[in-house]
Amino acid sequence: MMRRGIVSEAGLIAHGRGEAFDYLIGEKSNDFAIKSEKAAVATMLLAERPVISVNGNAAALSGKEIIGLGEILNAKIEVNLFHRTEDRVKKIVEYLESLGGRNILGPDPDARIPGLDHARALCHKEGIYSADVVLVPLEDGDRAQALKNMGKTVITIDLNPISRTARASDITIVDNIIRAIPNMISFSKDMKNLSIDDLKKVVKSYDNADILKEALNAISENAINEWETQNRK
Amino acid sequence: MMRRGIVSEAGLIAHGRGEAFDYLIGEKSNDFAIKSEKAAVATMLLAERPVISVNGNAAALSGKEIIGLGEILNAKIEVNLFHRTEDRVKKIVEYLESLGGRNILGPDPDARIPGLDHARALCHKEGIYSADVVLVPLEDGDRAQALKNMGKTVITIDLNPISRTARASDITIVDNIIRAIPNMISFSKDMKNLSIDDLKKVVKSYDNADILKEALNAISENAINEWETQNRK
Repeated sequence: MMRRGIVSEAGLIAHGRGEAFDYLIGEKSNDFAIKSEKAAVATMLLAERPVISVNGNAAALSGKEIIGLGEILNAKIEVNLFHRTEDRVKKIVEYLESLGGRNILGPDPDARIPGLDHARALCHKEGIYSADVVLVPLEDGDRAQALKNMGKTVITIDLNPISRTARASDITIVDNIIRAIPNMISFSKDMKNLSIDDLKKVVKSYDNADILKEALNAISENAINEWETQNRK
Repeated sequence: MMRRGIVSEAGLIAHGRGEAFDYLIGEKSNDFAIKSEKAAVATMLLAERPVISVNGNAAALSGKEIIGLGEILNAKIEVNLFHRTEDRVKKIVEYLESLGGRNILGPDPDARIPGLDHARALCHKEGIYSADVVLVPLEDGDRAQALKNMGKTVITIDLNPISRTARASDITIVDNIIRAIPNMISFSKDMKNLSIDDLKKVVKSYDNADILKEALNAISENAINEWETQNRK
């Protein structure tokens, strides 16, 4: 995917960081991740203008699933890159179209996210700019914060529970995107039938600070358990 | 360095994994790392045929310092790649020579490490093959184990204290290579003046299992501390 121009060089390093954190949370969807994924689905089902922001790594890892999730949740998909080049935006859009994506936003931005450099600020008026809820998997901290500052509800998928993105977001899914999106698709199918009141209850009972705490506890415990397992050998 | 053909694509991902673990140990040379670095220097000063194995990431991150360490410890330097291509070996040798390295082994292997695939087994008879002590920073687990199986003393630098490399090695330096090699250079300057008996005492008092345990405890504690810091804000 890097050789095809979809993933950036920096994206490979970011992927490695994710691998390490995934190992430390046990390479599974823990309870804290499931809770976040359900709250994320409820929030997006309640949204008026939900948007899924897609970068190179997200497209490479979960392009097809993201398109599927967008269809179920009636969410627009917008390609939005931290290391933006017009060439890479175009290639990612073409890739998503080859997977069945339609009306993918990204190549012709007509708005800007306030507080960011020009290239990082570019977005679509009918997409991220006017969204009330944005799912930004594998996002940079500055951009997650800038979206928060616009008053949006920000949902992220980030394996590092201590990252600025994780802390800036309303809902932080500490899970590998390749597990998180299929889980969200599965929850969406059930939760679509819930009443607005029931969806609101799911959102109201969710506490992101608790989730981050649970994720850090899991890392801490797994590190100690690894040592004990190793010591018994 | 990737664009120059020195670091492999997989090397970027491995670097990202290292970044995550470095963050979790506090991006500093902890006590456990200092102890390992001293034991490593003592072991290499006592060695008859010490060799430093260098791959793309090690060359890119610490090429100049590795050459300096090799000079102080009278250790040979051998370029030895997990994702071996003759072109990359040649480029890394040229790069190390541009930094002042001399007699760098790697391009004309005439021996093989038993138990590995052909490309991964290639080495020099006068280098890794006949070494009694090998420093293999950022090494793959299979190769660390294969060197152990040959009866060598294996020293590694690996930020992941749970990796197979970390567990297979006699001395595991859980530190960033960009801090570890300068530390080792500094310790070498002092420890060169120690008697053989004193160097042997340093080696004898070293317990790698304790070091790995300390590193895992540090990760566990840092994860919890991060949460508490975050919670106070």
